[in-house]
Amino acid sequence: MAKVTSVSPLAPAKFPDLPVIDGVLFATAAAGVKYQGRTDVMLAQLIPGTAIAGTFTKSTTRAAPVLDCQSKIGGISDQGAAILVNSGNANAFTGRNGVVSVEAITSAAATACNVPKSRVFTSSTGVIGEPLPHERVTAVLGDLPSKLDAQGIEAAANAIMTTDTFPKGSAAYVNVDGKSVRIAGIAKGSGMIAPDMATMLVYIFTDALVEQSELQSMVSQYTETTFNCITVDSDTSTSDSLIVAATGASGIDATNSHAFKTALHDVMLNLAQQVVQDGEGATKFIEIVVSGAANDADAKTHAMAIANSPLIKTAIAGQDPNWGRVVMAIGKSGAAADRDLLSIRFGDCIVAKDGWRSPDYSEDAAAAHMRGQNIIIGVDLGLGTGSATVWTCDLTHGYIEINADYRS
Amino acid sequence: MAKVTSVSPLAPAKFPDLPVIDGVLFATAAAGVKYQGRTDVMLAQLIPGTAIAGTFTKSTTRAAPVLDCQSKIGGISDQGAAILVNSGNANAFTGRNGVVSVEAITSAAATACNVPKSRVFTSSTGVIGEPLPHERVTAVLGDLPSKLDAQGIEAAANAIMTTDTFPKGSAAYVNVDGKSVRIAGIAKGSGMIAPDMATMLVYIFTDALVEQSELQSMVSQYTETTFNCITVDSDTSTSDSLIVAATGASGIDATNSHAFKTALHDVMLNLAQQVVQDGEGATKFIEIVVSGAANDADAKTHAMAIANSPLIKTAIAGQDPNWGRVVMAIGKSGAAADRDLLSIRFGDCIVAKDGWRSPDYSEDAAAAHMRGQNIIIGVDLGLGTGSATVWTCDLTHGYIEINADYRS
Repeated sequence: MAKVTSVSPLAPAKFPDLPVIDGVLFATAAAGVKYQGRTDVMLAQLIPGTAIAGTFTKSTTRAAPVLDCQSKIGGISDQGAAILVNSGNANAFTGRNGVVSVEAITSAAATACNVPKSRVFTSSTGVIGEPLPHERVTAVLGDLPSKLDAQGIEAAANAIMTTDTFPKGSAAYVNVDGKSVRIAGIAKGSGMIAPDMATMLVYIFTDALVEQSELQSMVSQYTETTFNCITVDSDTSTSDSLIVAATGASGIDATNSHAFKTALHDVMLNLAQQVVQDGEGATKFIEIVVSGAANDADAKTHAMAIANSPLIKTAIAGQDPNWGRVVMAIGKSGAAADRDLLSIRFGDCIVAKDGWRSPDYSEDAAAAHMRGQNIIIGVDLGLGTGSATVWTCDLTHGYIEINADYRS
Repeated sequence: MAKVTSVSPLAPAKFPDLPVIDGVLFATAAAGVKYQGRTDVMLAQLIPGTAIAGTFTKSTTRAAPVLDCQSKIGGISDQGAAILVNSGNANAFTGRNGVVSVEAITSAAATACNVPKSRVFTSSTGVIGEPLPHERVTAVLGDLPSKLDAQGIEAAANAIMTTDTFPKGSAAYVNVDGKSVRIAGIAKGSGMIAPDMATMLVYIFTDALVEQSELQSMVSQYTETTFNCITVDSDTSTSDSLIVAATGASGIDATNSHAFKTALHDVMLNLAQQVVQDGEGATKFIEIVVSGAANDADAKTHAMAIANSPLIKTAIAGQDPNWGRVVMAIGKSGAAADRDLLSIRFGDCIVAKDGWRSPDYSEDAAAAHMRGQNIIIGVDLGLGTGSATVWTCDLTHGYIEINADYRS
């Protein structure tokens, strides 16, 4: 069976208009790492003084570029910085070769961009366990600086794609003390994530001036309620990376701006949701809202148990308001629950209340909600004030086709 | 699309010859709880003095009959006992009605079998959230004692099936101090488990004399390495129940017999593996053997992360020796691992060693193993002496069909 390549039915109508961010330039190239006839390397060059924050996969088998990148976050420099990404090969589980490739790429990028190697942040995404042909990447690096372009962010979003069916972008304009700063971000990923050919990578840029430690603290905090609240298939990549760069080129200090924080969170959430909307085989976008839990951690445990249940995800693919499976997921999650206090809704339709099917339950109303593209599952535990919201997609034949059929 | 009903390709050629167990008689009936044209109620009557042990789902939303049954385990009685099971309706998440149904059924069974209500152990399996029409069960109870038969265990295995594609049985003959005792067990279940229409129920009988507290301790211990080491889809039922009854009719005391313990463990393991072999949509039986972990708990965490990974299960369905996904699962499991000490094998084919693809790796050899019906994934962490073995099946279009397509 051929690989599924059509665009996700949940994709936005078009790539959004992203603003130019002063202080960052983009360039892309077709290095032929694995793919032919498309770009697969992207460079983002950042001006001196840019604050860079990041969060990374917690996998114990994380890839060499992730370990290198992580170790460089936190430093401040009055010199420039560069972000270099290749698609087609993840340079993961490649032993000592992996470190050699990272060294080769970061050295070449440092020379080409005239920045210290300690300020070159590199990511690789694609097949794992194969040595990265890094000479193909370094071969295009010499020319990249001459192609740098302030308008190049959409091309960058395309160059980092692997099994993605659409490029992902998001932006915000923020009023800070009466002046305007901008945020623009791109992401790739279409599983949570297939280590074979997918990984979530996110790059967000802003011209605001933000103190590095404060930027890191915002990014770490918001990751918990955005990227760490999505799941496609419960599988976590060896390479997931998020980098946020504040160039400061606007001269506007947003370190303590509530509006900036809200906008950054919103851009992160929007990109996270786009990753789910490009979930492998997805036909439905699902929001799971848990309230009334003993605490927030319990609420998230319940929400993730629902979001990762193959039985719930297949029921939603089948447009079946199968609330019994929601009861099951809550029961198995390990977090506190009292069967006789549970309430469950699909959209606005209350299906279960106080531990049994609601007397007002209408199968027709619930089924109508399930036929939509955006599904909401609400659960109230009736125990306390803990809450959480997570996002996922359905589990369909498309997922099986993408992950079982095409390589065999 | 029609519901998938053909017999699992992993099913045994035939139902095994199970020995008669002195002290237990079986009867079945067609009560029409939900299914038509088949039996759906089974009764096992046990002689006075039978020791009964059990383990049950840890779900916080467990069903009314589970709660009732659990509360009765442990007592010893010089009166008889009865096990009564219906299929077609799980009497789960049915609020106060659930308790009323359990009360009605256990009272009627106690009267019919002339045993105390405290010695009637009942289970229900099937759809959840629907009130159990218990009057259909009690209506057939009066006649059941007249049909009791020492040879009725295969009929019992059939009566408790829901989405199962074959009845499951297993037996052992054990030499205890030169004398022979027998063990015979039956199980149902074909997901781990779909709360909609499946649940794992297991009933094991022996004519050995075993002290109840020791029997409970064996059952609790062996559950950890048998039924708690299988997974079809990571979803846990609201009703899973295992009951072991030692009638003592042989007069042979096996309380301290090592051979008996081994045989009981083997029967439990065999039944557990049959449940996986009837996993929804399964075409491959997968054994995952983890060694060299920091401790046994870590080994099981890694093994279950592999067994529950949709990406690994789909890769196996596609006969793809995708060891990169095994690296991913180990990385995400949360248990200790050092990427550079990892070794992975498929069958006898070493695919990765010391943190990278093995120099001797043969894609052809690995692919040949993946084309078989019994797949072995071996992982050595290189950290310590912890080990675990778990069993699962692949994730196929059949699973999606069974769980998404047929009800919508």
